[in-house]
Amino acid sequence: MVDYSILEFQTHGRGTTDITDKVENVVADSGIHTGICTVFLQHTSASLVLCENADPDVRTDLETLLARLAPDGDPAWIHDTEGPDDMAAHARSILTSNSFTIPVADGRLMLGTWQGLFLWEHRTSGHSRNLVVTVMGEE
Amino acid sequence: MVDYSILEFQTHGRGTTDITDKVENVVADSGIHTGICTVFLQHTSASLVLCENADPDVRTDLETLLARLAPDGDPAWIHDTEGPDDMAAHARSILTSNSFTIPVADGRLMLGTWQGLFLWEHRTSGHSRNLVVTVMGEE
Amino acid sequence: MVDYSILEFQTHGRGTTDITDKVENVVADSGIHTGICTVFLQHTSASLVLCENADPDVRTDLETLLARLAPDGDPAWIHDTEGPDDMAAHARSILTSNSFTIPVADGRLMLGTWQGLFLWEHRTSGHSRNLVVTVMGEE
Repeated sequence: MVDYSILEFQTHGRGTTDITDKVENVVADSGIHTGICTVFLQHTSASLVLCENADPDVRTDLETLLARLAPDGDPAWIHDTEGPDDMAAHARSILTSNSFTIPVADGRLMLGTWQGLFLWEHRTSGHSRNLVVTVMGEE
Repeated sequence: MVDYSILEFQTHGRGTTDITDKVENVVADSGIHTGICTVFLQHTSASLVLCENADPDVRTDLETLLARLAPDGDPAWIHDTEGPDDMAAHARSILTSNSFTIPVADGRLMLGTWQGLFLWEHRTSGHSRNLVVTVMGEE
Repeated sequence: MVDYSILEFQTHGRGTTDITDKVENVVADSGIHTGICTVFLQHTSASLVLCENADPDVRTDLETLLARLAPDGDPAWIHDTEGPDDMAAHARSILTSNSFTIPVADGRLMLGTWQGLFLWEHRTSGHSRNLVVTVMGEE
């Protein structure tokens, strides 16, 4: 059995949004008891991250990390059509993740205690972001 | 239902090859209408990237990024059996992706408008690279 | 058909453990002939890596790489609740991988000749780490 939903999120510039509950709802609505859930982001200047969900400082530090590895307005970037954060956003996206496949049991995501699923906007302005959540398995 | 194909690509040294159409063909041939497609690269010195497909400058800039993070001939590398690009290629591979799971609907990959799937060769010489494309779901 | 197992590993501080055989055993026991195997780590301060399995120097060099990109005790880290390696471990985790989906044929993982699957502990002390291995497909 397979079921999918497209979730739309409006971001408000660079930063993370906890999407765990929204994805969990799709799993619950699918009626699937055991299987897998694939979360896929249809964009190349945002990404997904499975992150510590307790202390928000972790996500602040992850921004610091990416700002170092892929700075805005780096003189080496050729691609800057949409501004100094354009190529930095693509670089941040490929250094992190675009999709996750998470096991499902008892009709729930089998996340660890400290794991949350976050949408990570890498552009400095807000964007509309689509996520495809697919659940496959047995009822 | 499950179906898979092994695709072989001949690369011509460091750089990206758009493989979206080849993977899309496997999905179409599978006869699967709704489900997932897993693309898996059987190598550790090349990788896969879901990247902006419009401006090739993005992929040039991604090479610049990886050349900084994992330079060829870095004096810190111990592993250099196959030359100065050997360890750099492994490092570039683990910083990017080795597999993607992409949702399938209406018998097609549910990619975003600007998303292309690229094989990324990290060795400076050409190599033969095998990709396993698995499609699972319902007809 | 779907089957899953939770594997527990005791790590002994920072470093890699080859888990290929353990995951291969779950695939064999599932009785599934053709499909996919999803390996999912329930932690955010360790990760998974598909790495060259012949020369251990590759994994030493990967530690060097991550020590540069995400150093312990970096003065920029705000999150240091569990010590100087706490935030470094989260950063190393998001730069590498948290899950892999590997194709299965003839009841075996379709890994490349030189690919091994490793659990990568990023904390300096040992931890108990849980991995969910899900196998889906046809008998």
